[in-house]
Amino acid sequence: MNDNLGGITNTDEDRLSRGRRIPEQIMGPGVPPGTPATQELAPFFSSWVYESVFGDFYTRPQLDLKTRVFITMVALSVQGRMSQLRGYIGASLNQGWTREEIIEALVQLAPYQGVPATHDALAAAKEVFDAKMASGRP
Amino acid sequence: MNDNLGGITNTDEDRLSRGRRIPEQIMGPGVPPGTPATQELAPFFSSWVYESVFGDFYTRPQLDLKTRVFITMVALSVQGRMSQLRGYIGASLNQGWTREEIIEALVQLAPYQGVPATHDALAAAKEVFDAKMASGRP
Amino acid sequence: MNDNLGGITNTDEDRLSRGRRIPEQIMGPGVPPGTPATQELAPFFSSWVYESVFGDFYTRPQLDLKTRVFITMVALSVQGRMSQLRGYIGASLNQGWTREEIIEALVQLAPYQGVPATHDALAAAKEVFDAKMASGRP
Amino acid sequence: MNDNLGGITNTDEDRLSRGRRIPEQIMGPGVPPGTPATQELAPFFSSWVYESVFGDFYTRPQLDLKTRVFITMVALSVQGRMSQLRGYIGASLNQGWTREEIIEALVQLAPYQGVPATHDALAAAKEVFDAKMASGRP
Amino acid sequence: MNDNLGGITNTDEDRLSRGRRIPEQIMGPGVPPGTPATQELAPFFSSWVYESVFGDFYTRPQLDLKTRVFITMVALSVQGRMSQLRGYIGASLNQGWTREEIIEALVQLAPYQGVPATHDALAAAKEVFDAKMASGRP
Amino acid sequence: MNDNLGGITNTDEDRLSRGRRIPEQIMGPGVPPGTPATQELAPFFSSWVYESVFGDFYTRPQLDLKTRVFITMVALSVQGRMSQLRGYIGASLNQGWTREEIIEALVQLAPYQGVPATHDALAAAKEVFDAKMASGRP
Repeated sequence: MNDNLGGITNTDEDRLSRGRRIPEQIMGPGVPPGTPATQELAPFFSSWVYESVFGDFYTRPQLDLKTRVFITMVALSVQGRMSQLRGYIGASLNQGWTREEIIEALVQLAPYQGVPATHDALAAAKEVFDAKMASGRP
Repeated sequence: MNDNLGGITNTDEDRLSRGRRIPEQIMGPGVPPGTPATQELAPFFSSWVYESVFGDFYTRPQLDLKTRVFITMVALSVQGRMSQLRGYIGASLNQGWTREEIIEALVQLAPYQGVPATHDALAAAKEVFDAKMASGRP
Repeated sequence: MNDNLGGITNTDEDRLSRGRRIPEQIMGPGVPPGTPATQELAPFFSSWVYESVFGDFYTRPQLDLKTRVFITMVALSVQGRMSQLRGYIGASLNQGWTREEIIEALVQLAPYQGVPATHDALAAAKEVFDAKMASGRP
Repeated sequence: MNDNLGGITNTDEDRLSRGRRIPEQIMGPGVPPGTPATQELAPFFSSWVYESVFGDFYTRPQLDLKTRVFITMVALSVQGRMSQLRGYIGASLNQGWTREEIIEALVQLAPYQGVPATHDALAAAKEVFDAKMASGRP
Repeated sequence: MNDNLGGITNTDEDRLSRGRRIPEQIMGPGVPPGTPATQELAPFFSSWVYESVFGDFYTRPQLDLKTRVFITMVALSVQGRMSQLRGYIGASLNQGWTREEIIEALVQLAPYQGVPATHDALAAAKEVFDAKMASGRP
Repeated sequence: MNDNLGGITNTDEDRLSRGRRIPEQIMGPGVPPGTPATQELAPFFSSWVYESVFGDFYTRPQLDLKTRVFITMVALSVQGRMSQLRGYIGASLNQGWTREEIIEALVQLAPYQGVPATHDALAAAKEVFDAKMASGRP
């Protein structure tokens, strides 16, 4: 994928190193994306996520990173994918969304995803907010 | 919303107090709907659920409360929203559905929601039935 | 399956003939369940639905047929399975549920399945009600 | 619901008139939300959507209207609710999102909702863009 | 159902005993399908799963058992039904699929079910593989 | 991604040309994957699907192409993504699966995805089989 970089022929190495910077930016330093199970059982797939999701999608200029993590958080709430949802609530905080904005987005979804899905998503948000407070980081 | 009350202009206070009676009737006394996370992070949304879900929907006369909690239980089983499903299995017991009828409804759903969803819903039902027996309440 | 008939050893023929009466009762005379594609491509599966869904589930005494078709309608609305949903809205009418009760059930689901799912289900209900009126049958 | 308005006791009339302005702002003048079937079969529910969804949620200051319609579009894409999705792609255009941003959001979702869901959502976007161009409005 | 057995009229006993052999073949000896809750609350449904799912579907010659458990595993991954998914990952191993093939299937699904669903499914696979290694069985 | 090719550093061009051969193999000559809307609105995404889905996933040796298209068909049936499902039923035929095997797989899914989903999938299969017969190709 190189149409967002203006005609440069990328090798996989270029995409991989570009992709590896994104999770650090959105999850914070030292937090690898995905799960330990994925890294152990499917290293090919871990690399693919770095290159082909973070490297190819998140680096495109049409939407900024702040917007991308927010709409990803929305998608994960609708799907009820809880462990990934927690990751992207944290990523939204890291990208500058306030707690109030995150809560409001999960509430805005209630008439579409249903009230129970919003209850579940807010419980995930509380876990993320509490863990952040306990860690002493802003 | 006042079309179910014949032309009275309701204030929000009317709807809220009407709505607050319903969860007590269906969940039993002292069991607030939703989750502690919702009440802490999104008090606006908790009030909205009381007013606009319990106050506006559950009080309409076209279907009785007993039927409403039963079809809500069905919806939550199909969606696999487990913590809310447990709440509405308990609510169905409180509204007079027997254990046999609740089990039968979850089994009736198997050809539509799939066998695994019925296994999961029956596991939720067993938790609710066992907790009720342990509490010594009928 | 014979536990609902008290110790009689059923042959497949018994279950099949028992199962074949149910769709007529719920869909009305002359309306086979399922789709022409199923009957053409998978006659084994059509027979299985008669025997193992209609014959084994719908004939059990723990819930009456009127309740079974109603909760099936609810499940299909939550799943967004439109062609089957239309069939079970018609079946609910045939089993004695009023239009008002059917509409109210689909509205009751809105806070759980989402507002768009209720819009879609009400559009299906309107098609069924209009077709019934055009056919001149009650 | 009045916590976003600072202690004023709203009557339903207040919420309804506030709620009725939102669909015009987001869908364009003369385009009622929901479907004709909903308005015909369930006028109670149509009013509830105006009051309790548009009047209570969309008017809160924590997120602006432009963000709300965008994340609603995202939710509808993930759910595959096609007719409502078309409405909110149009609403996103009306609120100032560019075609490029809308396309990019639907593509960003592909690793989460799946590639087929993005194909379907882009087909919906093309219909909306083409209808807008045919209408001669910007 | 007897069309796969050439005109023999089966009694329920035939189907049940045929169906009981399958779970042993796919889950390993001594592992009943379904959950304890299902067996306790809904023995009718447990028998129905043996007869009408294992007895009627899994014994048909058009696809072998090895293929059936594999595509069932795929379906459960897409649905996110975790406890049943673990059972069918184990069943796939028992039927001769290698760990590499199972991992690869779950990865192949990522562009369709989404990356988070594949992360979740690989975590389930790791649990099954680790439990198998701890048990000392091949 | 090059771990399936043994240490060769691939450029995007390599992956793209490798990926472009797959859809022809599975869909038949002259049938591009995805939809015209995707190709028009999101050419970046079309290329990404060629490279990062067909080029990276489908060419890995751990599962053959015949198995990959079959499990993709299963996933699309469970999700109810109809237009893509038709494409992968056709792809399964092209890869050597018989009509009987395809029908049997969709029937095998019924206890997991629900009976209505199997009815819908069989209707899609009939459309594909009929179109193939009308085209005079085997």
